[in-house]
Amino acid sequence: MTAHLVTDRVRAAYDVIDAVDRPEVWITLENRDAVFAQAAVLDERMRRGSATEIPLAGLLVAVKDNMDVAGLPTAAALPSFVFSPTVSSPAVARLQAAGAIVLGKTNMDQFATGLVGTRSPYGAVRHATRPEYISGGSSSGSAVAVALGIVDIALGTDTAGSGRVPAALHGLVGIKPTLGLIPTIGVVPACRSYDSVTVFAQDLGLAQRALAVIVGPDRADPSSRSWPSTTRLAPRGITRIGIPAPADLKLLSADAQAAFTAAVDSVVQRGMQTVTVDLAPFLRAAVLLYDGALVAERYEAAGASVAAGEPGLDPVVAQIVRAAGTIPAHRLVEDRALLDTLRTQALRVFDDYQGVKSGIDALVLPTTTEHPTLAAVAADPVAINARMGTFTNFVNLFDLSAIAVPAGTADGSPFGVSFIAPAFADQVIIDIAAKFLGQDSRPALLPTDTLDLVVFG
Amino acid sequence: MTAHLVTDRVRAAYDVIDAVDRPEVWITLENRDAVFAQAAVLDERMRRGSATEIPLAGLLVAVKDNMDVAGLPTAAALPSFVFSPTVSSPAVARLQAAGAIVLGKTNMDQFATGLVGTRSPYGAVRHATRPEYISGGSSSGSAVAVALGIVDIALGTDTAGSGRVPAALHGLVGIKPTLGLIPTIGVVPACRSYDSVTVFAQDLGLAQRALAVIVGPDRADPSSRSWPSTTRLAPRGITRIGIPAPADLKLLSADAQAAFTAAVDSVVQRGMQTVTVDLAPFLRAAVLLYDGALVAERYEAAGASVAAGEPGLDPVVAQIVRAAGTIPAHRLVEDRALLDTLRTQALRVFDDYQGVKSGIDALVLPTTTEHPTLAAVAADPVAINARMGTFTNFVNLFDLSAIAVPAGTADGSPFGVSFIAPAFADQVIIDIAAKFLGQDSRPALLPTDTLDLVVFG
Repeated sequence: MTAHLVTDRVRAAYDVIDAVDRPEVWITLENRDAVFAQAAVLDERMRRGSATEIPLAGLLVAVKDNMDVAGLPTAAALPSFVFSPTVSSPAVARLQAAGAIVLGKTNMDQFATGLVGTRSPYGAVRHATRPEYISGGSSSGSAVAVALGIVDIALGTDTAGSGRVPAALHGLVGIKPTLGLIPTIGVVPACRSYDSVTVFAQDLGLAQRALAVIVGPDRADPSSRSWPSTTRLAPRGITRIGIPAPADLKLLSADAQAAFTAAVDSVVQRGMQTVTVDLAPFLRAAVLLYDGALVAERYEAAGASVAAGEPGLDPVVAQIVRAAGTIPAHRLVEDRALLDTLRTQALRVFDDYQGVKSGIDALVLPTTTEHPTLAAVAADPVAINARMGTFTNFVNLFDLSAIAVPAGTADGSPFGVSFIAPAFADQVIIDIAAKFLGQDSRPALLPTDTLDLVVFG
Repeated sequence: MTAHLVTDRVRAAYDVIDAVDRPEVWITLENRDAVFAQAAVLDERMRRGSATEIPLAGLLVAVKDNMDVAGLPTAAALPSFVFSPTVSSPAVARLQAAGAIVLGKTNMDQFATGLVGTRSPYGAVRHATRPEYISGGSSSGSAVAVALGIVDIALGTDTAGSGRVPAALHGLVGIKPTLGLIPTIGVVPACRSYDSVTVFAQDLGLAQRALAVIVGPDRADPSSRSWPSTTRLAPRGITRIGIPAPADLKLLSADAQAAFTAAVDSVVQRGMQTVTVDLAPFLRAAVLLYDGALVAERYEAAGASVAAGEPGLDPVVAQIVRAAGTIPAHRLVEDRALLDTLRTQALRVFDDYQGVKSGIDALVLPTTTEHPTLAAVAADPVAINARMGTFTNFVNLFDLSAIAVPAGTADGSPFGVSFIAPAFADQVIIDIAAKFLGQDSRPALLPTDTLDLVVFG
């Protein structure tokens, strides 16, 4: 280890930033001198042997522009929305306290409304290695900053799949924990009932290290949740993975279907059992996120800006939000009731019956349906976006946990699958993902000193 | 014990029903021959020594008309809404499985919209002992059936205070458990996010026996919840009770204020500490239930009937529900966000800080503000109802647990107070209520075999 490890890492990052010429990745970059000053402090602390206090020392972090970083503007990709927070969102503060350095705020689909990465007045974010293709969104800049190797970790947010789709398109790991496990104070809401903070990394172990630091309730956050008494801390010995019927994959190209089949083969080769499950209630819920009344939550978040016709509004986002303003409240209540019913039906696949272990530990699905070009999305911005959320939209609506992992390539782009399980089964799917990738799973998401609060389910 | 204990109890009940001439208490009475047949079966089982299998054998139960009892019509007090369920709501089924007998379905404020007991085409329910006064609602018939001694236990529902206000006005115990602890499938929603099933009894121990049987999740119910790892199973040794500042009691008459002061004195005499707390965020939330957008949930439940102008609609209920149909969805999202903020502020009173036990175990408040006459409510049906919910409305909005207990008299009517605590502190407030009443607290709400799943908080 050199005496300037952190400083060297920062210098390397700026070399990449300068070399790649991808200004659209960032909305705000931290002042370089300030970053080097932080690096020097961390190097000094490590020289003094304080490394255990700063387990993430020298890891570089990119933060999505809808999350507060004290001292940097938050804009959620709308210039006129900008404000200057004095307090960082807990996930940011916890990473910094562990020794990570924030390089800047990343571009995103405005108000986190989109899965494409093109809906921003700061420019469409191009894919890291196929620049004529989309990056995926809404956490577009965060994913690309990781994929280009600029940062080690990026924070995203995920309502419809924004922390998973861009991970899949770049061959990254994207972890979307159970709602409420990472506080969402200091995060501009997209759809406040269904927003989650997420982590991107090139490597599962790195994502786990970050996640272990940032998970945990915050008493100022009304939507914070703590681990229930039934929390499962590992998959069962014989792990059962639900897979979709072939008919449910018809939106995928032949090449993508082959990649998914190969991923399922991998699951089996790793010693897990697969069982075909009925996706109907999951897929029916997925369309409720934008095609039902739940979209009214987006008006609550962005309606004032859209109604004011502020400059810099993305036209597609503005159209979605504007339409959301006219929905009657009782329709929202109805859709929530329908969602409850669908969820009860859907989640039966995770249950055992009468002592027989017939339930699955997790579901594996393609993370998204396709990797479109920028031009294709520009020509048809709503339908392609909707299709891409087919296998992600329902996850937060059903209060599930999910992890997106790389699974080969399809049609010349990275291909990814997601493991999905009920709320609070986060460690279960991380362990399954590690097994799938042929890696160790650590560190554990729940620190050892909480284990006495938790019962194996 | 006679050989016809249950049959004798049933006969006594019918004697009271015939004697009191209170037809407005019931919407549907079970067939008498069928009830006697059930009683005979129970008597026979007890003769055979099966009493431990049927711990509630011979207890008579009244069920609010918005809860399904297989074989009896459910109408929620709207004749045209009637349907004939083939499956009982879980609370009903669990009571019956434990040996209790359902005598019938009770009158209620239509669609459980009201705290007065006068909003029903089946007639205003008169108070059990002061017939020119209201019974309180919306679980009006259930409370009066218990107060008249017809039944031992009655099931109510509670959104704004419907399981507590009529208990207070009759000197009964009314337990409103944490949302989700008693399944709400088979219950006609009033405001589905905030509806709870409740228990009325003349005696705390009897209410506890019934509650111990009916609490527990049902896998078909999406809103069911199980006990979290942080569940507190008892109040602390030194129990701290929050009390309101005198200014927050100004809606009460001088006599009612004196009764409340006496109740607080009782709390102190029983060895508990009192501490004045800031009720502002609680009271601010209380008005959101009807005066904000949350009332849209009532349109989801009853809007179709009201829009159709069905015969038998209560004019006050119809007016409330009709207005709820025009609220935009984003206002509902905004009010929910405001509620989250208020809840975070309000619930701080239950927290300890920095290791110092500064938090309270429970709040004690007057259950309601007044006991109006039927004539007064008829003259001013909305304002009096709103006032009566001052100290109850916020409870379900903030996801709290509550128990209403008798506390002397005021202005010639029974007076009651409620102990209120966070979600899942149900056992804590039951124990506090028992201490207040000078009684033992048993049986425990959580059966012994679940204790290993639960950690003392």
